[in-house]
Amino acid sequence: MSNYRAPLADMKFLLRDVFKAEDLFARMPETSEVTEDLVNAIIEEAGKIADNLLAPINQSGDEVGCRYDDGVVTTPEGFKEAYKAYAEGGWSGLTGDVAYGGQGMPKVLSALIEEMYFAANSSFALYTILNTGATLTLSYHASEELKQRYLPKMYEGSWSGTMCLTEPHAGTDLGMIRTRAEPQADGSYSLTGTKIFITAGEHDLTDNIIHLVLAKLPDAPDGPKGISLFLVPKILVDDEGNLTGERNNVRCGSIEHKMGIKASATCVMNFDGARGYLVGEENNGLSNMFTMMNYERLSMGLQGNGLADSSYQIASDYARERIQGRAPNGPVNENQAADPIIVHPDVRRMLLTVRANVHAGRALSLFAALQLDIAKFHPDEEARNKAQQLVALLIPVQKAYCTDRGFEACVLSQQVLGGHGYVAEWGLEQNVRDARIAQIYEGANGIQALDLMGRKTVRSRGELLAVLLGEFDEFIQAQQGNAAMQEYLPALADCKQRLETITAEVIENASSNPEEIGAASYAYMELLGLSLYCFMWQRIMAAVLEARDSGGYDEEYLDGLLKTGEFFISRMLPKAAALEAEIRAGAKTLMAMSAEQFQSG
Amino acid sequence: MSNYRAPLADMKFLLRDVFKAEDLFARMPETSEVTEDLVNAIIEEAGKIADNLLAPINQSGDEVGCRYDDGVVTTPEGFKEAYKAYAEGGWSGLTGDVAYGGQGMPKVLSALIEEMYFAANSSFALYTILNTGATLTLSYHASEELKQRYLPKMYEGSWSGTMCLTEPHAGTDLGMIRTRAEPQADGSYSLTGTKIFITAGEHDLTDNIIHLVLAKLPDAPDGPKGISLFLVPKILVDDEGNLTGERNNVRCGSIEHKMGIKASATCVMNFDGARGYLVGEENNGLSNMFTMMNYERLSMGLQGNGLADSSYQIASDYARERIQGRAPNGPVNENQAADPIIVHPDVRRMLLTVRANVHAGRALSLFAALQLDIAKFHPDEEARNKAQQLVALLIPVQKAYCTDRGFEACVLSQQVLGGHGYVAEWGLEQNVRDARIAQIYEGANGIQALDLMGRKTVRSRGELLAVLLGEFDEFIQAQQGNAAMQEYLPALADCKQRLETITAEVIENASSNPEEIGAASYAYMELLGLSLYCFMWQRIMAAVLEARDSGGYDEEYLDGLLKTGEFFISRMLPKAAALEAEIRAGAKTLMAMSAEQFQSG
Repeated sequence: MSNYRAPLADMKFLLRDVFKAEDLFARMPETSEVTEDLVNAIIEEAGKIADNLLAPINQSGDEVGCRYDDGVVTTPEGFKEAYKAYAEGGWSGLTGDVAYGGQGMPKVLSALIEEMYFAANSSFALYTILNTGATLTLSYHASEELKQRYLPKMYEGSWSGTMCLTEPHAGTDLGMIRTRAEPQADGSYSLTGTKIFITAGEHDLTDNIIHLVLAKLPDAPDGPKGISLFLVPKILVDDEGNLTGERNNVRCGSIEHKMGIKASATCVMNFDGARGYLVGEENNGLSNMFTMMNYERLSMGLQGNGLADSSYQIASDYARERIQGRAPNGPVNENQAADPIIVHPDVRRMLLTVRANVHAGRALSLFAALQLDIAKFHPDEEARNKAQQLVALLIPVQKAYCTDRGFEACVLSQQVLGGHGYVAEWGLEQNVRDARIAQIYEGANGIQALDLMGRKTVRSRGELLAVLLGEFDEFIQAQQGNAAMQEYLPALADCKQRLETITAEVIENASSNPEEIGAASYAYMELLGLSLYCFMWQRIMAAVLEARDSGGYDEEYLDGLLKTGEFFISRMLPKAAALEAEIRAGAKTLMAMSAEQFQSG
Repeated sequence: MSNYRAPLADMKFLLRDVFKAEDLFARMPETSEVTEDLVNAIIEEAGKIADNLLAPINQSGDEVGCRYDDGVVTTPEGFKEAYKAYAEGGWSGLTGDVAYGGQGMPKVLSALIEEMYFAANSSFALYTILNTGATLTLSYHASEELKQRYLPKMYEGSWSGTMCLTEPHAGTDLGMIRTRAEPQADGSYSLTGTKIFITAGEHDLTDNIIHLVLAKLPDAPDGPKGISLFLVPKILVDDEGNLTGERNNVRCGSIEHKMGIKASATCVMNFDGARGYLVGEENNGLSNMFTMMNYERLSMGLQGNGLADSSYQIASDYARERIQGRAPNGPVNENQAADPIIVHPDVRRMLLTVRANVHAGRALSLFAALQLDIAKFHPDEEARNKAQQLVALLIPVQKAYCTDRGFEACVLSQQVLGGHGYVAEWGLEQNVRDARIAQIYEGANGIQALDLMGRKTVRSRGELLAVLLGEFDEFIQAQQGNAAMQEYLPALADCKQRLETITAEVIENASSNPEEIGAASYAYMELLGLSLYCFMWQRIMAAVLEARDSGGYDEEYLDGLLKTGEFFISRMLPKAAALEAEIRAGAKTLMAMSAEQFQSG
């Protein structure tokens, strides 16, 4: 069912009323021309692409999948044409560096667009995201020569990019990679090794594919500090940035048969003396690659949100149409055999849970994207630094929490449809399968939680959290005079208090036993995610109250937002106490069993 | 990967040490010959079928799926041979009525076997389960003539059974079905209508298929009280119970393309003047069908447990073998590049969560199965009645909670493998897809929760719960003298107190607003499920302590059980408080929005 409708009204409300994005853009010279009208025009166009171009080939793409034949990958019918239209529309370089043909737009904008693309067609979206990540890395770290030679074609969408990190024996632990890069007389390198799980490693959408590859130089130090980053084109490029026609020695060995995102080619890539070019300094490859990681991880959270919204649309339409059983307080459809299932409290529980998470997740993603923009564009150094601190804290939560809630949303939406949700026709089972990967790739969610708890919290002794909680405080203070907010604010103050208390406890416990970090990490990520969703709902509710006073919006629309926020506070936020208790339980019972005792009997 | 290992040691421990099944069987004349040795011999044989016959064709069955061609359904390679071996082994009539060729074994026994079959190959298991359900219904409600004609062949496995309930417009609300049954001069009926989602509706495993079909007689009352049950054979049968060779007018119109259980044929069945025979009294079909519902729902919970255990086995093996990163307190594998990932607290969190749920879920399923056996076989009426009350309360929880936890277990296990969990090779993504259906079919879990909260709790004014909590009490009293149990017992007493309090509140609230039932139902089901898992863990831990004193078990094995129980109490049980708070939040915010306000923006 290709009935996805880009959620433009919700997006505009967030940009305009919740985050007042135009004011912010105006304060930063490089984004000063990004007006509300321009933003709206762009997301409306992107919404049409999502609705009319990508959604219609989503289900067929899943059915057919990518095909592999002797090193060649063929994408499903319609993907090539859609990618061409996408590239010709200028979308490929939207946030790109203007010096090389990019359009220099803020991330907030592309975040909204990515959500729509992922919602409409996650497999397709991945081809675009990987290219964006590769160009970002090149624009920050590549030499002027490499940038001039590669970026324009990647921004125009005639070439695309990949990230080649994982190897069969090295996923999370990239320090263990074995791909070697031998320096050549001409200043290039010869790369040899095998990479796996390479999204868009081979396909038929573009004229060339530019691989960014992690590899080890001869005599490089062991571990993560001995890894360098290389650019390896599929087809060799001449000095003017044109294709030579000569194939490089990099070849797709096979594609994975996976649970979902079947129209996205997940490739085994064999580098067999492939010609590559160093990007950035030697042995600094991991760090250089991490420049784009915050952006890529944000995108994964957006995939979770997008598929959650697409699922919500199907389930809420179904619940208003499907006639089955009677309302608890008597028929609402006197003249029909039964009532629509949306009369049932438990169906509403599922829909409202999804709805509350979709809105909060989108708001959190925009909030994080805004920090990325401030960190990049703001003229004031202090503002940039603070935004960078918020980015460091927010991204692992946004990635993990939005993808967890996104998957849950697809599952709950599927549940609303009963047996119909389990069959392919309605699209929900595909959404479940497609959403599942977002919890795994770009750093599995357990790794995000560990990054949040260890590097970002314990190691900073709570400094980054203090910056975020300062934002909570600032909001609470600003709303003190707002009578209508008084019934909601205590929930946010509770979140702040709980986070402060439990964070101090974990930092203290970890000082004597490092295992306490991993023991606390997942529940801590969930607690911070839930608290951030509360913060986002409070901001949305405050904006609703403001908009209601100033007029211009449909009353029913605003009221629906307010009531969803009330549902969140009343029925979803209580989980925070359980998460706190789980964190407090600590490492003891986790570490008690020997590895052998885990064997099943 | 067909490396499933039937968990015989765990099963034997539960039967012998936790539930002392032999003693119980000895007290009931019809099961008095079911000794521990007999039970062990039977489950060992069943384990071999699961490990060696069913697991090896699980992944290939998923890849190929069932094929449909003009009314004919072909199961994947190996299924026919496996079903033949299953039937020839006498498994088809294991719990069947001895008067018609069944073996009269208790449900506890077949519950363990079903778990193993679902774990090894859920698609295959479904063919067997449906037949068991159909024979059970016939043995309770069919005429002597029908029983003699149909049961022996179904017990010997040469014919199989189905349940035809759902129609395109009527799933949960069966009162709306439209299939008609016209009485014929010869005492038979002519059935016309369309049924959907019919598991095993058509296939090539048996010589005949016996459909049990819900339909309406002419002039039957509206709603659920106007539905009758009919037996409709695929191939007509003569008076001696032999095939006539004449095809009945029932035909498979298509099979569904679904998320999982792809080797199980999910059929659209068209009845076009098909000859049928009334089973039980006119207009009492739904009630007659519900005889087997408790058994079928138990089976679905077993599917959840089985796939959870199969997933756990893969994930825990992987976590002990996969080398990646270093332990938080320094290397455990000095001479290798990295440590096995089981050193990480967060990997242990995932594995222990699954492990704790697998053991508790299996125990709860056995506890419920024992009640089914007591209700059927016990010579003492009071014992039978009490067991029947426990069955009524336990089955909806066991069905919903074990399938929810089962799905979650598959997802968590998949997460342990990272990207490898997402590709088909390791089998986990199939387990996720196969487990998902168990939350939906045989009454979606929301319906189970509503049955528990409404019919079983509010309507009985907590009477059934009081019977269950009496069991909690009895256990707590019995353990008062057991010093080693004193640190655990307060957790169970808390569960009891919490359930009593919140149940009284819901009953009170529901008396003025029926919406409060559905508003509380899901969290209530989860709270009761969690509390029952606590009860099961306490019983397991008490049995461990007893077994440790009496000797005969491997110390490490017993210690691993105890530590898993401690993990459950310390880190998983705190969720109870959040569920209580969610229930207490009530219907208000659930019912506030209009149906239109659910539309997305």
